[in-house]
Amino acid sequence: MTALAAPDTQAHRVRTAIETLRTRFGDRVCTTHSVREEHSHGEALDISRLPEAVIYAESTEDVSETLRVCHQHRVPVVAFGAGTSLEGHVTPPEHAISLDLSRMTKIIAVNTDDLDCRVQAGLTRQSLNANIRDQGLFFPVDPGGEATLGGMCATRASGTAAVRYGTMKENVLGLTVVLATGEIIRTGGRVRKSSTGYDLTALFVGSEGTLGVITEIQLRLYGLPETVSAAICQFTNLDDAVATTMQLVQIGLPISRVELLDEVQMGASIRYSRLENLKPLPTLFFEFAGAPDAVSEQVRTTETIALDNNASGFTWADTAEERSRLWKARHDAFWAAKSLAPGALVISTDCIVPISKLGVLIAGVRRDIDASGLQAALLGHVGDGNFHALLIAENSDDGRRRILELDRLIVGRAQSLGGSCSGEHGVGVGKQEFLETEHGDGALSLMRALKHTLDPDGILNPGKLLPAGRVYGREASLNS
Amino acid sequence: MTALAAPDTQAHRVRTAIETLRTRFGDRVCTTHSVREEHSHGEALDISRLPEAVIYAESTEDVSETLRVCHQHRVPVVAFGAGTSLEGHVTPPEHAISLDLSRMTKIIAVNTDDLDCRVQAGLTRQSLNANIRDQGLFFPVDPGGEATLGGMCATRASGTAAVRYGTMKENVLGLTVVLATGEIIRTGGRVRKSSTGYDLTALFVGSEGTLGVITEIQLRLYGLPETVSAAICQFTNLDDAVATTMQLVQIGLPISRVELLDEVQMGASIRYSRLENLKPLPTLFFEFAGAPDAVSEQVRTTETIALDNNASGFTWADTAEERSRLWKARHDAFWAAKSLAPGALVISTDCIVPISKLGVLIAGVRRDIDASGLQAALLGHVGDGNFHALLIAENSDDGRRRILELDRLIVGRAQSLGGSCSGEHGVGVGKQEFLETEHGDGALSLMRALKHTLDPDGILNPGKLLPAGRVYGREASLNS
Repeated sequence: MTALAAPDTQAHRVRTAIETLRTRFGDRVCTTHSVREEHSHGEALDISRLPEAVIYAESTEDVSETLRVCHQHRVPVVAFGAGTSLEGHVTPPEHAISLDLSRMTKIIAVNTDDLDCRVQAGLTRQSLNANIRDQGLFFPVDPGGEATLGGMCATRASGTAAVRYGTMKENVLGLTVVLATGEIIRTGGRVRKSSTGYDLTALFVGSEGTLGVITEIQLRLYGLPETVSAAICQFTNLDDAVATTMQLVQIGLPISRVELLDEVQMGASIRYSRLENLKPLPTLFFEFAGAPDAVSEQVRTTETIALDNNASGFTWADTAEERSRLWKARHDAFWAAKSLAPGALVISTDCIVPISKLGVLIAGVRRDIDASGLQAALLGHVGDGNFHALLIAENSDDGRRRILELDRLIVGRAQSLGGSCSGEHGVGVGKQEFLETEHGDGALSLMRALKHTLDPDGILNPGKLLPAGRVYGREASLNS
Repeated sequence: MTALAAPDTQAHRVRTAIETLRTRFGDRVCTTHSVREEHSHGEALDISRLPEAVIYAESTEDVSETLRVCHQHRVPVVAFGAGTSLEGHVTPPEHAISLDLSRMTKIIAVNTDDLDCRVQAGLTRQSLNANIRDQGLFFPVDPGGEATLGGMCATRASGTAAVRYGTMKENVLGLTVVLATGEIIRTGGRVRKSSTGYDLTALFVGSEGTLGVITEIQLRLYGLPETVSAAICQFTNLDDAVATTMQLVQIGLPISRVELLDEVQMGASIRYSRLENLKPLPTLFFEFAGAPDAVSEQVRTTETIALDNNASGFTWADTAEERSRLWKARHDAFWAAKSLAPGALVISTDCIVPISKLGVLIAGVRRDIDASGLQAALLGHVGDGNFHALLIAENSDDGRRRILELDRLIVGRAQSLGGSCSGEHGVGVGKQEFLETEHGDGALSLMRALKHTLDPDGILNPGKLLPAGRVYGREASLNS
C-alpha cells in the first residue's frame, strides 16, 4: 500500500467529524435516511438538503463537544429544534451536521416569586405552559406553532400576544450559548434590568444559529390573569377595522391580542372552523386580560371605538370553551386558507409597518393580489402593524414563481412605507434579498463583521441570514 | 534649520487632529480652560481629566467628520451630553477630544399615530416631554437628572418608571450611529418589532460610547394617561414594605412607579422636603396611571395588600400639584440625604437583585452599614429589585476609601444573590472590577472581541466599561 496524504475535502472532514462524534455519542449520532430527511428542512419544504448526520444533544456539554469537534474539522453545524421555521433556517448546507436539541426539555428552575424560569432550549412553549399553569404562571409569547423556546429565541419569534407582552426580545433575560469553538458562555441573568456591558443576550436573540447555539434560556413569566374575555366584531370595510385597532393602540389600551382577518380569510375560516354566526367580512378578534374592573372597562372602550367605526356583530366569549373555540379558529387560519384550494401551494408572507401605514399597505397589497390573479387571504397581528398574506397558487414551479413575485411586491410596498420584510418569521434563506434595502450597506457590513468575529470559519449555520457583501473593518485590518 | 521627522506621539497626534478640526469647525473647536474643565468629568467629580479640546457637533455629519479625523490620527474621542453620568463615563483619557452633542437638540419627527419620534441625541428627556405634551404624548423613561437622550441610550438608563414602561432597552426602536471610522449607519427602524438580522440597536444601547457615537434616536412614545393617582404609605419595618411590593408585582398589577425610602432617607426627606405629616419610617411611594376604573381598582388592590402587610398612614395625592410635591420629594432624595451631613461626601451605590432577594439584601446591607460606622440612606426602584444606598462620609481621601470599601461589600452581596452590580448607572470606570464575577470570563472575552471589531484602534472612549483581559477568537486568529 502507498501512504497517501488524507484528502482535506469538505466531504472527508465531515466524515472524520462524524466518526469522532460517534465515539463520544454512540447511537445519538444518527445517519439513517429517515432521520436525515426529517432534518433536511423546516416548514418551507422546497428549501431542503440532507445533513450528513444528526446528533441528538442532551446537555449543554453535548452541544459544546459537538461544536468543538466541528470547529476542529471545520464542519458546518445547523441547530434544529422542532423544525417549524418558515424561511429555510434549519436546512443544512452541503456536508453539514444537524444538531438536534429537541431532547433538551428540562425545566431547570421556576421562580414563582420573581416571575422567571430557566429552561433547556428544546422545550416547547406549550410544555412549559402546561408545567407552570398550576403555579399560576404563564409564558405569553405565542407564535402559533409548537416551536421550541430555543428556536423562538433564534428567530426572535412573537405572534398574537406581542402587542401586550412583547416578543422574545423583551422576554428573554439571559442565555447559555455555545460559541463556534465549543466554549460555553452565559449572558444576562435573573435581574429585570442591568447596565453592565454589551447586551449579548439581544445579540443572540434573532441570530438564527449563525453566532452560537443557544442551550438554556432564562425567561420572564407572568401571573395568569384574574379575568380573560374575548370578542369578535365585523366591519363592512377593512379600513374601519384598521382604524379601530389604531385608536385602541393610541389610547394605550392594554389589549392582550387584536387580530385582523380579511373577508377572504373569514370566508375560509367560517367554513373550516364552523363559525356559522359570522359573515365573510373583515373581522377583528380581541382578547382582554387583567383585573375584573380593568377588563370590563377595556371591553366597554373597545366596543365604543369599534361601533364608532361602524362595527357590527359583536360576539363575546366569556367562558374558557368559547374563547378557545374562537382562538382555535384564528390559529387554524392557515389550514382554513389551504382548504380554499385543496392541493394548492400556500405560502405565508410576513411584513410589518408602522401601524398608521397598515391601511395603505393592505389596500395596495389587495391591488397587487388582484393584478396577480392569485387567491390570497390576509390576516395579521394588527396591533403591531404586522400582517401575513397567505398566497395561494397551483402547486408547481410556476405557481411558486408567481407567489414569490407577488411576495416581492408586497415586501417592497412594506419597506417603502418604513416597514420591515419580516415581523417575526426571520430571514433564513427566504428574506436575504430584502436586507440591503432595509438596513443599508453600513449596518449590514457591521452585522457581517460580528459574524466573522464570532464565527471566523463560518461553521455556524452558514448561508443563512446575511447576504454576501462588504465586512466592516476588513479593509482596515488588512492594512494594519 | 534641520529637517526633522514629525514626532508620532499621542500629544502630537491630538494637536494635529485639533488643527485639522479647527479648519473644519472654526470656533466650535474650543480649548479654553473653563470649557475643558466642564468636560473633564460627569457627576463623579473625583474621576477627572481635561480633554485637549471640546468639539461642539451640530449634526451627524459633524460627528462623522470628527471621528474620521480622530480615526486618521488615532486620537481618543469621548462623547459628552449633559455630563450627568455617575461612573466616570465621560472623563477623557489622556490626549483625548471631548465631543459635545448637547447642541444637537432637534426633534426630527413626531408620529402621533404611531406613538414614536426621532430626535437628535443631545435633546434632554425634559425638553422632549415639554414639546410633545400638547400632542397628548410622553416619553416615560425617567432617570431623575436632566440627562440627554443620547446619554440615556449610552448607559441604558431607566429610573422610577421602568417597572411599568421598561428601560431605554425596551423603548429605543432605532439609532443613527457614527462608527469609529466616521462611517454613519442606521439601526432598527420605526416598526414595533422585526426579525431581520442582528439587533444592532441593542448592541449600542448600553455601550457607553465605546462602540460608536449615537447621534439620532427613534423612541417609543406613550399616550398621556387619562387618570393618574399617587400615594404614600408607611411601615414599621422594611420587610413589610418589600413584601407589599413583591405581592403587587407578582399579581401583575401594572403600577406606574413604586419607590422605597428607608427610615433614614425618610427622616432626611421629611426635613428637606417638608413632609410634616409623615414619620421617619420605611415608606413606599406609588403612582398609578391608566383608565379611571382600572386606576381605582389598582388603588383598592394596593391598599388591601399594603394594609395586610401592616401599612399605615396612607396619603393620597390626586391633584397634579400634590403629586408633583410628592414626587419632587422622591427626586430630591439625594439632596435630602446630603443635607444630613452638610459638606460631606455622598456617593450613590446601584445594585439590583431578583425581587425575592431584596429583603435579604437590604437587611444585609443595613448590617454592613452599621458595621462600617458610616451614615447611609436607602432608596430604591423596588418594583425592579433595584436599589441605591446613599453612602455618607467625611469629604476626604479616607472618607472616599471607606465608602468604596462599603460599596464593594454591597455589590458582593447583590452579586451573590444572583444580582447585578448596576441596575441603571452603568459601568464606566467605577464598576469594572465587578464585571468578571458578574459575567464570567467567557462573556467578557466576547464583549472585548466586539469592541475590537468595532473599534480596532481603541479610539472610542477607551478605558471605559471593559476591564482588560482575554479577547475571544484572538488566539485563533493569530494562528490562522
